[in-house]
Amino acid sequence: MSPHLPLGPGREFDRIRRIAAKLGARARGLGDDCALIPPGLGELVSSTDLAIEDVHFRQVWLGHEEIGWRAAMGALSDLAAAGAQPVGLLAALALPATVSDDEVDRLMVGLGDAGSQVGAPVLGGDLSRGPCLALAVTGFGRAERPLSRSGAARGDGLWVTGHLGGARAALTLWSRGERPDAASRQAFARPRARIAAGRWLASHGARAMIDLSDGLAGDVRHLAAASAVGVVIQLELLPLHESVARAAGTVGEPPAAFAAKGGEDYELLVALPGAFTPAEAAECERETGVPLTRIGAVTPGSRVRLLLEATELALGGFDHFG
Amino acid sequence: MSPHLPLGPGREFDRIRRIAAKLGARARGLGDDCALIPPGLGELVSSTDLAIEDVHFRQVWLGHEEIGWRAAMGALSDLAAAGAQPVGLLAALALPATVSDDEVDRLMVGLGDAGSQVGAPVLGGDLSRGPCLALAVTGFGRAERPLSRSGAARGDGLWVTGHLGGARAALTLWSRGERPDAASRQAFARPRARIAAGRWLASHGARAMIDLSDGLAGDVRHLAAASAVGVVIQLELLPLHESVARAAGTVGEPPAAFAAKGGEDYELLVALPGAFTPAEAAECERETGVPLTRIGAVTPGSRVRLLLEATELALGGFDHFG
Repeated sequence: MSPHLPLGPGREFDRIRRIAAKLGARARGLGDDCALIPPGLGELVSSTDLAIEDVHFRQVWLGHEEIGWRAAMGALSDLAAAGAQPVGLLAALALPATVSDDEVDRLMVGLGDAGSQVGAPVLGGDLSRGPCLALAVTGFGRAERPLSRSGAARGDGLWVTGHLGGARAALTLWSRGERPDAASRQAFARPRARIAAGRWLASHGARAMIDLSDGLAGDVRHLAAASAVGVVIQLELLPLHESVARAAGTVGEPPAAFAAKGGEDYELLVALPGAFTPAEAAECERETGVPLTRIGAVTPGSRVRLLLEATELALGGFDHFG
Repeated sequence: MSPHLPLGPGREFDRIRRIAAKLGARARGLGDDCALIPPGLGELVSSTDLAIEDVHFRQVWLGHEEIGWRAAMGALSDLAAAGAQPVGLLAALALPATVSDDEVDRLMVGLGDAGSQVGAPVLGGDLSRGPCLALAVTGFGRAERPLSRSGAARGDGLWVTGHLGGARAALTLWSRGERPDAASRQAFARPRARIAAGRWLASHGARAMIDLSDGLAGDVRHLAAASAVGVVIQLELLPLHESVARAAGTVGEPPAAFAAKGGEDYELLVALPGAFTPAEAAECERETGVPLTRIGAVTPGSRVRLLLEATELALGGFDHFG
């Protein structure tokens, strides 16, 4: 991107010029009415995701690069769940007068870093005044056979990537006025959309996939409903983030239940044929760096059961209007 | 769209189910992590546009269907400027607790109506709590040869679609506590992205195009900068919206200057070869219903001059941070 983006005069367009200069190779083709989506093979998928101050984050918790990074990862994680390869991002920013040019630069650098980690330059966007800091990020990706939440079949195993509950651990500690440990803070501030793992799973027989943005306990119900199947999850099998034990203790919840309710880890829940083996899971980890853990199974009927040592727990996920 | 969208339980997902049921054929494939962009010929272009309460609109001015309609037209208008055929929309909504389910339905019906007017169903989106009502609409379109702001060449004529200044007339009257007349209110509340005209122009030699979202006086400077050309606009040639005379009078501006500063008309400014004739413009109007008016020319150098009866006026467009 040229630092001399050819736009007319004005503060708004100065900001766009600054952003283009800061992003460098992390952006492409900024400054026109429309973004051109790069051509390529496979179907094009897209997702749009909001990140709103005091709803999704607080400015006192995160640096501006982290706010931009998280906002991008929210949209990229949806692409991961489709098994897609990201190809670009659009970023719409609402900016209160209190946000400085330097802070806008850092927001966009964080957002651009997140995209460039996975091959998705910033292709365009929108800037506006706004009553609070808010980002709407739209991600584009390509997949030969896009996965969705439907397609899980009776007998499939249910697996998750990575470790759960880290982001909720940080949020829990912040909301109690405590300082999160470095590991949980990192889970919240610098999540990593599971692009490589999502693509590996899509090419190794995955039948249905969803990202855990609202928490396993809620998101598994979407996968079950979309696939018209029942599900049983054995919570004691959940791979817990290292920070869960302490945070769960402060709110008096069993650690696995705490992790199952925690959204924003951006891990993937995937239905794989029953014959998928631990050796194949180990291969996924070797190739993508992301562990896979079997936590349950697809069952007949439509019930979703979350069992902790054979006791059914009534847990839900995050609900914006609940 | 099935009214029985298979999602898990929760108020947020009840809202998505309601929206899908209300939208009917105006939506497709809602309820998954990603939207599938329909395949087709030509290059894929995309634009994202924010519409924020008390920045872009006030809830006391507009009905919720109108708010949704306008938000969609903002993104669709960018597709029009690329000469693209819209193929779908994503809608991200931030909703304060004061917005009712019925109001959300109406927002989405207005947005869906705008899209379905031009062949673009709602393919997905995001819902979140938020401190004010805000919409981020992303539009997708296809164009065999997407137009941009660059490409205008010395000797080209500059033309605009439709009539200018209607939306600003309504805003001016509202901001003075007066009631806009029906025509200017309509221009603000129910703009029409110039999709058919944009496509006609793209296939009849247009070299560069931009939509007038920030007003001719600002947007022409982007076209000139992107094309590395100068421009002269003869303001007395501007096709004025019928409500401009009254509103311009209330603020003591010459009507043409008033219209040149007014954004959000979502008309198109297009550079056409100098040989493009009034007869061809009449053909465009016959085929698309949209009049075309020649208002200036591309010149050597890089100066942008806005002349009113040979006197140069210093006018700019809307600047979010100006």
